[in-house]
Amino acid sequence: MPAEPLTDFSRLCLHTITTKPWSIEEAIEHYAAAGVRGMSIWRQWLEGRDPSQCGQAARAAGLEVVSLVRGGFFPALEAEKRLEAIDDNLRAIDEAAAVGAPLLVLVCGAVPGMPLAEARNQIADGIAAVVDHASSCRVKLAIEPLHPMYADSRSAVNTMGQANDLCDRLDSPWVGVAVDVYHVWWDPELKPQIERCAAAERLLAFHVCDWRTPTIDLLNDRGLMGEGCIPIRQIRGWVEENGFAGFNEVEIFSDRLWAMDQKAFLAKIQEAYLAHV
Amino acid sequence: MPAEPLTDFSRLCLHTITTKPWSIEEAIEHYAAAGVRGMSIWRQWLEGRDPSQCGQAARAAGLEVVSLVRGGFFPALEAEKRLEAIDDNLRAIDEAAAVGAPLLVLVCGAVPGMPLAEARNQIADGIAAVVDHASSCRVKLAIEPLHPMYADSRSAVNTMGQANDLCDRLDSPWVGVAVDVYHVWWDPELKPQIERCAAAERLLAFHVCDWRTPTIDLLNDRGLMGEGCIPIRQIRGWVEENGFAGFNEVEIFSDRLWAMDQKAFLAKIQEAYLAHV
Repeated sequence: MPAEPLTDFSRLCLHTITTKPWSIEEAIEHYAAAGVRGMSIWRQWLEGRDPSQCGQAARAAGLEVVSLVRGGFFPALEAEKRLEAIDDNLRAIDEAAAVGAPLLVLVCGAVPGMPLAEARNQIADGIAAVVDHASSCRVKLAIEPLHPMYADSRSAVNTMGQANDLCDRLDSPWVGVAVDVYHVWWDPELKPQIERCAAAERLLAFHVCDWRTPTIDLLNDRGLMGEGCIPIRQIRGWVEENGFAGFNEVEIFSDRLWAMDQKAFLAKIQEAYLAHV
Repeated sequence: MPAEPLTDFSRLCLHTITTKPWSIEEAIEHYAAAGVRGMSIWRQWLEGRDPSQCGQAARAAGLEVVSLVRGGFFPALEAEKRLEAIDDNLRAIDEAAAVGAPLLVLVCGAVPGMPLAEARNQIADGIAAVVDHASSCRVKLAIEPLHPMYADSRSAVNTMGQANDLCDRLDSPWVGVAVDVYHVWWDPELKPQIERCAAAERLLAFHVCDWRTPTIDLLNDRGLMGEGCIPIRQIRGWVEENGFAGFNEVEIFSDRLWAMDQKAFLAKIQEAYLAHV
């Protein structure tokens, strides 16, 4: 069964990249003023700032910091680059702890031409190399399976099944999965793999947006909820039936929507949230 | 193991859409002159022509007609539209028989917003409605699983596993699968699903091209073999280890490559075929 419509914004979270033109200060101000209750912070928004002050400012405005986005990108042809990626992920875990985010979202990485099985091994090795630090910082790591159209260069983990397999392999309570409807909506195994994910107590985040027809750009043409074909409410029903009670995180990359007045866009997001999530 | 490199063009087939600027007459002339031995004909190339004469011309030039492309697009919101799709597929089967193609490739269809499970049911119903005619015309139907980025509007069949499931459901020796590396290369289940496909004697066609990084258009930015990240020779090894001995069909949609002199492009295709397929 699809979930019941949402009637308030108590579980609405926005990713800072969704309102890309806004700095973190502007995002905090406008999200809070609109009654949004959560924010996921992309690392670029912390550049030149003190993460712990940013986290405090968000919380002081009534916003929970839901996650830091994003770590990952572990595979590389050279061992030195893989070590650099591990260092960068250790820093990202520190930033997540400083900003007060209980979760770091991982876009796992892929290298054009590297066999996907090898990339997946390097991803597993990379996560294994940082999980103790994540545990000591009390920051969970969320593997986000990415749509297969990103298997060339962004992630060799492309289905919920693979993300679950990777979690099984890593076998740590500090590693779980972020479900983004954009990446997984098409997968005939989605429902059983959500069940598997939740049964293992590793369903850590739920991201929403929509898939437009036609999609004119592989990266930056995501739709606002309701503009596309993803059965968002159905999928929310599946995660909630399996015990997920966290935020519904709106993560939209869209040249078209970034070009709008962002306060007007935020109002549209809230309208779409009640109508379509 | 990857397959051994190819050393001649005896199994090289081109899709007429690969050299889109050429009419069927030009395609026959230039393919034959270059030593290409097979062609898959897109239906648009037969418009205003007698299919049986086109087939005879191809064979007279030393070209085998490998398949007719494409049928499918079965799902529709209105029953009347579904009947029209069935009629169109019956005509496509007739055209395949007339042109002398033993195979009709199916792009199964999808409708934005229609639940994928419903689209798959309508696809199964559509194929079931035409399979007797295919049998009587001795034309096999090849379900081509399409990349998940086409699940919105082109096909609700997006993996080899789903294509195999659909074949199991239809249970006819006249229904099989076309494997196109562009659509399936990312799938962690690809090798076992190729084995399953071949074991059921339904692996009917093998299409090649490449996936470019970055890909700048969802439809018309396919790469020439070697321009991208697909392990084409590895996948050819898998289909051949499982008994496939048919043509290697080059099917490339590319605004960039269509803008080239097509004779120069054909020479590049042949070079890439020996180097990368």
